[in-house]
Amino acid sequence: MIDFARAHMPALAAAKVAVRASGALDGRRVGIALTLEPKTACLAEAAAAVGAEVAVLGSSHSTKPAVAEALADAGLSVFAEAGASPERVGELREGFIDTRIEYLSDDGAGVVRQIHTKRRDALEHLRGVAEETTSGVRPLRVMEAEGALEVPCVAVNDARTKLMFDNVYGTGQSVVMAALDVTNMQMAGSSVVVAGYGRVGRGIALMAHALGAKVTVTEIDPVAALRAHHDGHNVAPLEDAVARADFVFTASGIGHTLTSAHVDQMPDGTVVAVGGAGRPEFDISGLTPDGNEIRPGLRGYTTESGRTVFVVADAYCANTSAGEGNPVEVMDLSLALQLRALDYLASHQLPVGVHLLPADIDDEVAASQLAAVGVGIDVPSPAQTRAATTW
Amino acid sequence: MIDFARAHMPALAAAKVAVRASGALDGRRVGIALTLEPKTACLAEAAAAVGAEVAVLGSSHSTKPAVAEALADAGLSVFAEAGASPERVGELREGFIDTRIEYLSDDGAGVVRQIHTKRRDALEHLRGVAEETTSGVRPLRVMEAEGALEVPCVAVNDARTKLMFDNVYGTGQSVVMAALDVTNMQMAGSSVVVAGYGRVGRGIALMAHALGAKVTVTEIDPVAALRAHHDGHNVAPLEDAVARADFVFTASGIGHTLTSAHVDQMPDGTVVAVGGAGRPEFDISGLTPDGNEIRPGLRGYTTESGRTVFVVADAYCANTSAGEGNPVEVMDLSLALQLRALDYLASHQLPVGVHLLPADIDDEVAASQLAAVGVGIDVPSPAQTRAATTW
Amino acid sequence: MIDFARAHMPALAAAKVAVRASGALDGRRVGIALTLEPKTACLAEAAAAVGAEVAVLGSSHSTKPAVAEALADAGLSVFAEAGASPERVGELREGFIDTRIEYLSDDGAGVVRQIHTKRRDALEHLRGVAEETTSGVRPLRVMEAEGALEVPCVAVNDARTKLMFDNVYGTGQSVVMAALDVTNMQMAGSSVVVAGYGRVGRGIALMAHALGAKVTVTEIDPVAALRAHHDGHNVAPLEDAVARADFVFTASGIGHTLTSAHVDQMPDGTVVAVGGAGRPEFDISGLTPDGNEIRPGLRGYTTESGRTVFVVADAYCANTSAGEGNPVEVMDLSLALQLRALDYLASHQLPVGVHLLPADIDDEVAASQLAAVGVGIDVPSPAQTRAATTW
Amino acid sequence: MIDFARAHMPALAAAKVAVRASGALDGRRVGIALTLEPKTACLAEAAAAVGAEVAVLGSSHSTKPAVAEALADAGLSVFAEAGASPERVGELREGFIDTRIEYLSDDGAGVVRQIHTKRRDALEHLRGVAEETTSGVRPLRVMEAEGALEVPCVAVNDARTKLMFDNVYGTGQSVVMAALDVTNMQMAGSSVVVAGYGRVGRGIALMAHALGAKVTVTEIDPVAALRAHHDGHNVAPLEDAVARADFVFTASGIGHTLTSAHVDQMPDGTVVAVGGAGRPEFDISGLTPDGNEIRPGLRGYTTESGRTVFVVADAYCANTSAGEGNPVEVMDLSLALQLRALDYLASHQLPVGVHLLPADIDDEVAASQLAAVGVGIDVPSPAQTRAATTW
Repeated sequence: MIDFARAHMPALAAAKVAVRASGALDGRRVGIALTLEPKTACLAEAAAAVGAEVAVLGSSHSTKPAVAEALADAGLSVFAEAGASPERVGELREGFIDTRIEYLSDDGAGVVRQIHTKRRDALEHLRGVAEETTSGVRPLRVMEAEGALEVPCVAVNDARTKLMFDNVYGTGQSVVMAALDVTNMQMAGSSVVVAGYGRVGRGIALMAHALGAKVTVTEIDPVAALRAHHDGHNVAPLEDAVARADFVFTASGIGHTLTSAHVDQMPDGTVVAVGGAGRPEFDISGLTPDGNEIRPGLRGYTTESGRTVFVVADAYCANTSAGEGNPVEVMDLSLALQLRALDYLASHQLPVGVHLLPADIDDEVAASQLAAVGVGIDVPSPAQTRAATTW
Repeated sequence: MIDFARAHMPALAAAKVAVRASGALDGRRVGIALTLEPKTACLAEAAAAVGAEVAVLGSSHSTKPAVAEALADAGLSVFAEAGASPERVGELREGFIDTRIEYLSDDGAGVVRQIHTKRRDALEHLRGVAEETTSGVRPLRVMEAEGALEVPCVAVNDARTKLMFDNVYGTGQSVVMAALDVTNMQMAGSSVVVAGYGRVGRGIALMAHALGAKVTVTEIDPVAALRAHHDGHNVAPLEDAVARADFVFTASGIGHTLTSAHVDQMPDGTVVAVGGAGRPEFDISGLTPDGNEIRPGLRGYTTESGRTVFVVADAYCANTSAGEGNPVEVMDLSLALQLRALDYLASHQLPVGVHLLPADIDDEVAASQLAAVGVGIDVPSPAQTRAATTW
Repeated sequence: MIDFARAHMPALAAAKVAVRASGALDGRRVGIALTLEPKTACLAEAAAAVGAEVAVLGSSHSTKPAVAEALADAGLSVFAEAGASPERVGELREGFIDTRIEYLSDDGAGVVRQIHTKRRDALEHLRGVAEETTSGVRPLRVMEAEGALEVPCVAVNDARTKLMFDNVYGTGQSVVMAALDVTNMQMAGSSVVVAGYGRVGRGIALMAHALGAKVTVTEIDPVAALRAHHDGHNVAPLEDAVARADFVFTASGIGHTLTSAHVDQMPDGTVVAVGGAGRPEFDISGLTPDGNEIRPGLRGYTTESGRTVFVVADAYCANTSAGEGNPVEVMDLSLALQLRALDYLASHQLPVGVHLLPADIDDEVAASQLAAVGVGIDVPSPAQTRAATTW
Repeated sequence: MIDFARAHMPALAAAKVAVRASGALDGRRVGIALTLEPKTACLAEAAAAVGAEVAVLGSSHSTKPAVAEALADAGLSVFAEAGASPERVGELREGFIDTRIEYLSDDGAGVVRQIHTKRRDALEHLRGVAEETTSGVRPLRVMEAEGALEVPCVAVNDARTKLMFDNVYGTGQSVVMAALDVTNMQMAGSSVVVAGYGRVGRGIALMAHALGAKVTVTEIDPVAALRAHHDGHNVAPLEDAVARADFVFTASGIGHTLTSAHVDQMPDGTVVAVGGAGRPEFDISGLTPDGNEIRPGLRGYTTESGRTVFVVADAYCANTSAGEGNPVEVMDLSLALQLRALDYLASHQLPVGVHLLPADIDDEVAASQLAAVGVGIDVPSPAQTRAATTW
């Protein structure tokens, strides 16, 4: 599976060439704390291939065991066990941090926040962080604003080649497909609620709409709400919207967006899936789970008042927990950016703060995938350049 | 899983009420030879619930073992073993036919053709056949034209509530999703070939197009080709079309549509999936399979000249073999029609031949699903009726 | 404008070649009673070019004067005056019928019904009728069923190359665009009601949906309603649906579908446009028109209770009255079929009744447009043919 | 027509209320140099209604005479004559500048550049500029970078409620519709080239794709090109792309994007339309125009080598020249922002430079349209706010 993924990741291959030439990661200790599946395994492999000592951390609910095994066989330090108990998960995280990581790929800023609070000893070695998601960049910026951040970070998430692709096309396809897979239901004709119309929510809404659903978007931002309206979706307050839903997706990137109070407004049997990574976007603390899954990846949850809905992957992010994560083509871009970001951190003395990747790195990553799919673009003519640079 | 499916099949529930009231299947021997999964299990259950003695036949590659077990526990005669050898499959089919079926639900006309040729003894009991698919209705009509057909058949496939829904929305969603699931690839930006632009091919093409693929349709019928052109797809001869494909789907309903000669024109690594039920739509006899699947449901096949492509579900129909078949909402319609068709055959003395379901049964099935989703329609006003019935 | 249209009508050009070769129309009297605009002018020209004596009839609200003039200059008999009074329209129709038409292209069966009732003298010469629309085929079939039809008719409308193209793509684009043109409003975000989900209604709904509207379909047929539901549209009774509409389109093909009682349920300012040709689909007899158009092609109409809506083209068919009719590419197909149908009627001694065009003519017309756009299709291999014709 | 437009512009109505309350424009001299049609007339009216002395400037090719007349009747100073000669256009511009404008709404930065070069006397009175378009903001930023700018400017174009709506939905619909209107051609099945994949280009491509076209995008930016690829469009160099085009749209915002050299690569009869405002996006200096328009708004142009294409509106921006500009719903947003921007300039002592509108004004404009269409949004719960603002 790793081979198949690698063959579909030309941008990561090009990034590996560039980073090997740079040499900045050679001999450095790199930690990768992303969902552990075949595609992220290719990033770990690539980091090792350019000379880094690599440790990987995987969660209990999204780790693919065969992938963990393959990386361990290849000599990487693997801290990942599918289905591990919370205690064991804690031990694995400590072990991962114990590897004295210099450059860290984080997802949701989970490890970097742990290091800034309970594992401050690890700050001694940590020289840079590449953060993958919207939900992780947000707290990093809060930390920066509050003066709590102590390490330079690159917001990989905010690179155009990440934000405009992974979040929209990748998560859109993978979250909607995960919900359909675990239910064997159809989008066409169904009523779908999407809570949040940022890039992920927009991707989910576009995908559901393309598959024939009637989509209602909920928002707290009037401009985003208006955009949803002009995109042809219904817009309504969340409490009203869920009252007729067949599917509810959250994509706000903010914890506690959906609660048991909302579930009480839903029809019995509504399917709920989490698309964003704001923890916990769907706060299921007020709900009682059924003992067994009704289908793999789908479990009934009941409110105190007796309303029962079906929750995908126990409210973990649906695409990585009930599916295999985002498609390989967009992960190719995101992981190429990750590798470039780690190299960028190792090559420059960046000040503490949240930084963007330079635009030329973004452009190079985009161009490497374009080249692989055989697509040509133009260079401006002298007359165009003149028109673009004069007034 | 059967419970979850049943809860999403209101039209089948309504059909059960109607057929119980008719009483025509009470005490009759019914054989169901459809893909054995949770939804078709609901049909088998429903047939038993209205008083029939029910036998079910399942294929080696699409049977879901837990479903087979549940039906056996409920007292039905089950002839289905996942992964059975060809010899064992043969024995199971003989055992199924040995139950002296009076009314048969067939899929692809496989059992009915076997009975007309090698098991002519079974014709003694067989009083009617309800055929599910385009690929099965076609040979039944040939048999009728040649005078070889000896039993009344109902072309369930040709009911509007089947043809316009299952074949388009159901197979479109399920075949494309099966291909994406087994590859973790993305439709957006990919080049997709669809061989055949009947209802199934149209569904696949619409789905792929909605997900952002560039679709090329191949056809032998100029009107269908022109329709694909006006639907915004590229149209080209198959040999040319496959030369740039990321995915190739067959949906012709006709055997030998895709052959190793076409594979020689494909890029290395193309993914090929069969969407129709014309056997073998993709004739893989000239290809050599790899020993192991590269991912579950995906195996490499190589031509004599050395071209390797990845084939979904070893060229069996992708949605039932690498997935769970069509979504529950459209199967609700198809299986309600099946139950109504068996009852119709049992209630009437139809002559030998291929018959359509009466339009009012079609309308009732459609209306029962509309009612379940809470949708209202109009009745014509006197002025409209007058306008519609005079000149 | 006629030149520009002709250059975009390769199928009509091919039909002209075929019909000239047949010679059956040479010296015959042909009457063309279609909307008079540049594309239908090309049909009239083509009929003249193959040797017919051609008379054309145009309506008061859709005739383009420059086109009428050009045809008159070319020696055709033209009975068309834009803005003519009802009396003058009556005179023009009589004059047209007075030309002793042998083969008639009719639109909505208006002339053929007049001949069967008030101008029975013209039946003496009339040898065949090619009918263009759904709304015209319907009464012809009623006439046939009642024994009132006295001339062989070809239902050009029912040819696959007409029905699947003109009615869906052509009318969908042209009716929606006409409504947007005369209002300068936007589809994206608007609420659109489509009354009727036949081919024209489906085309309008698809177009509006593609442009970002939220579409509600109303129907009297449960299967059509269910199809709309699976296509992702809302479905509701008409009276409820119009209560929140920004735009209401009728496409039922049946008179009196929309009445002043429905208007009383609409919000003030709703825009109403007629897409079908069932006269009067929108019965405006209970409404009072404003004196002047508020914009060209748009006039306010008020109910007795004081509700005011804006009606496109005074409830005439929007695309031909407020626009230039269907796009040239689909009219190329329809008009090629018209010419072939006239030739078919003139070449065969058809019995009285409503006939379909033979499938091979349909195929030839489709193939001629495919050839013009440079699209290739396949021929079945021997293995496929064997698979398709045996059981 | 102005009344009809005003009734569909609730955001402008709300802005008028806010600006009247502010009082900052009361008695000020305002100049409005936008395309003069019913919607912009509503802005001019609104500026007058809040107390400003208003002058309007309209171009020779896009002014609607009835609108100019109505504004003059209402007491505004109107400098606009449809079809004016270049000399007369120059006189009108001078007259407009002579009104000693304090606050200017400019479109393309044409007037503000003229004032900074040839009419520097007018800088004495000019206190602020609100610029409407991408093509105007670009030179203003160049001027700012070069130190040539001498007046505070607000980039209305860069407000989210402008950029995400007008440029995408508005121009997408209006440019594509203008091209279809002047040709009576069909998008479905056609090959469309879009040069530039910024917001306008994306809108055009989405619209053409939604209508069934096969779209090829050309770009100079790899990230934008990759986005087009993932959106399902073909991507190619412009010279290659045009070789099979039925329609070519430019949307680069940069002059000289399309030249006679590109025309030499097009098929005879290709339709070319300009969608952006980079002057001249389509440089027709190497082409010879036909004497007369072949249809209103469409004229043949021939290269030296003899290739003839049809150009919409003589290469002026198609939607304002061959159509009525963007739909009223998006112009409602843009013109509300214009009025708010003029008020903002008059209420604050902004430094010289290019400024954004404050986000809260953006939000208010969006919220006013949401309220008018009856759409509700949420306010964050305390738990959400806590989640969003802590780490």
